[in-house]
Amino acid sequence: MSVWVPYRLEGVLAPLATRDDILVWDGKTEPTHDPGDVRFYVQPYTFDRNTVEIIAEMPNLEVVQTLTAGVDHIAPAVPDGVILANARGLHDASTSELALGLILASQRNIDGYVRDQDQGTWNFSKHPSLADRRVTIVGYGSIGRAIHRRLEPFEVEVTAVASRPREGVRGVDEIFEILPSSEIVVLVVPHTGETERMVDTRFLAAMPDDSLLVNVARGVIVDTAALLAEGGRIRAALDVTDPEPLPRDHPLWSRPGTIITPHVGGNTNAFLPRALRLIGDQVTRWMKGEPIDNIVPRAG
Amino acid sequence: MSVWVPYRLEGVLAPLATRDDILVWDGKTEPTHDPGDVRFYVQPYTFDRNTVEIIAEMPNLEVVQTLTAGVDHIAPAVPDGVILANARGLHDASTSELALGLILASQRNIDGYVRDQDQGTWNFSKHPSLADRRVTIVGYGSIGRAIHRRLEPFEVEVTAVASRPREGVRGVDEIFEILPSSEIVVLVVPHTGETERMVDTRFLAAMPDDSLLVNVARGVIVDTAALLAEGGRIRAALDVTDPEPLPRDHPLWSRPGTIITPHVGGNTNAFLPRALRLIGDQVTRWMKGEPIDNIVPRAG
Repeated sequence: MSVWVPYRLEGVLAPLATRDDILVWDGKTEPTHDPGDVRFYVQPYTFDRNTVEIIAEMPNLEVVQTLTAGVDHIAPAVPDGVILANARGLHDASTSELALGLILASQRNIDGYVRDQDQGTWNFSKHPSLADRRVTIVGYGSIGRAIHRRLEPFEVEVTAVASRPREGVRGVDEIFEILPSSEIVVLVVPHTGETERMVDTRFLAAMPDDSLLVNVARGVIVDTAALLAEGGRIRAALDVTDPEPLPRDHPLWSRPGTIITPHVGGNTNAFLPRALRLIGDQVTRWMKGEPIDNIVPRAG
Repeated sequence: MSVWVPYRLEGVLAPLATRDDILVWDGKTEPTHDPGDVRFYVQPYTFDRNTVEIIAEMPNLEVVQTLTAGVDHIAPAVPDGVILANARGLHDASTSELALGLILASQRNIDGYVRDQDQGTWNFSKHPSLADRRVTIVGYGSIGRAIHRRLEPFEVEVTAVASRPREGVRGVDEIFEILPSSEIVVLVVPHTGETERMVDTRFLAAMPDDSLLVNVARGVIVDTAALLAEGGRIRAALDVTDPEPLPRDHPLWSRPGTIITPHVGGNTNAFLPRALRLIGDQVTRWMKGEPIDNIVPRAG
């Protein structure tokens, strides 16, 4: 019986790596061990279908651990009775710091100064601080809270919005009362039927002049046509777009007051050490017979 | 006897504004009131010499309050026996958030993506997170601590360095032990004989490959020739330069891995509300006969 992990367990996790029942498979080659022996499977961080399809060859499987927060890509392949655990929190640091970077770059005109720099132009000019701004975080899961923690020392007023209201969090049904005083709106909702194109003409029209819309969720949360039609009364900073990747001739590239990064929220060297910690913690818990974290509730 | 302030005292300070001995002079026109009556003078936030020279016409002066942290420009004009108070803390929010913006822009390649955007290029690429980095703050006064507070939620390891060691702060005499493990170095020291060109060839050589130097202090803290000679092994993000403004044809504009902003650390709308609070607090204390804050110790 074996545990399959996609990386050698190094550093603080080295003790686990000495066990001969912990085997490494990164999903890029044919497995060198028998999938029939696998009881705990950590899916490699790739969207290659073979890392999903191999589950059918694992009759003794007890746990599937993903390295993604969403599990839509793998859930249908996980048999009833097998525990499915996600990587909630794994991408928080990387994605939330990009959100802060996009906010600060737009507020303080860093994009404008980069273009000035290429012209050799010293263009002393005044721009809005982040300090004193009213910031609304739409979507208040793990990454939303990570953005909130990072915003706290910046002397801002934060409003958290989620699908259902709770202590300290307002319900999305109040969004049109909240938007008119929101100087910065950060989108970090999951993609669902309710959130798809939730940022439409009416949503954008409710935001104040020169406010900033930040999207680190999914491109389809924003109606691209509505954002283009809006013209530039509000600024935008988008790590995700619809369509994606954005074609070379797409008008969004040159929308006034817009910063675009190519869906790199999670793509940093913050990933690997956090992935190793998560894997080590989960495998250790399972070996000790303790409950593992991040279990995804499953229908049926 | 009167108090001269450079702005109408509005908002929370409105009660003070109703007093007929509080007069507004912004330094841009001839005074409409007699300087001979002034006992408390808030210097307008400008470097126009007339706002310094007018002190000679104030024989009843008791307090000079600046809106700058440094007072070198005005101290020689303030007579013995007159209290001189600075604006320590006033620029913390604006300058420290720019430091964070420059760090995040450089770590996460926002400058590169702005250039890609202008070409319509979706260039998915991996860059270093701020999370997990070892950050050294050189200069640990009011702004240095404000930067530290803002860095804390980002999962970094911060080392504070000041001219003299104290609890939680290392002395600058240890800098060459600290630099080899510093992935980000933020300069926020005052300009003194000791700090001028402290970042020289030896300092830069001690920093690791692909580390980042951030200067939000003064341009002359960095030896520009040494930074240019270094070539690009380390990245740089500079809000201040030497010379300043940087001439159009200066080679620093096109140094690889470099972001330049035009000395805009303090130039945001965070200034006015904080200036009004400082002025209101200090004038109120003085009127009540209480000691005022931020008194600058004076020789002689």
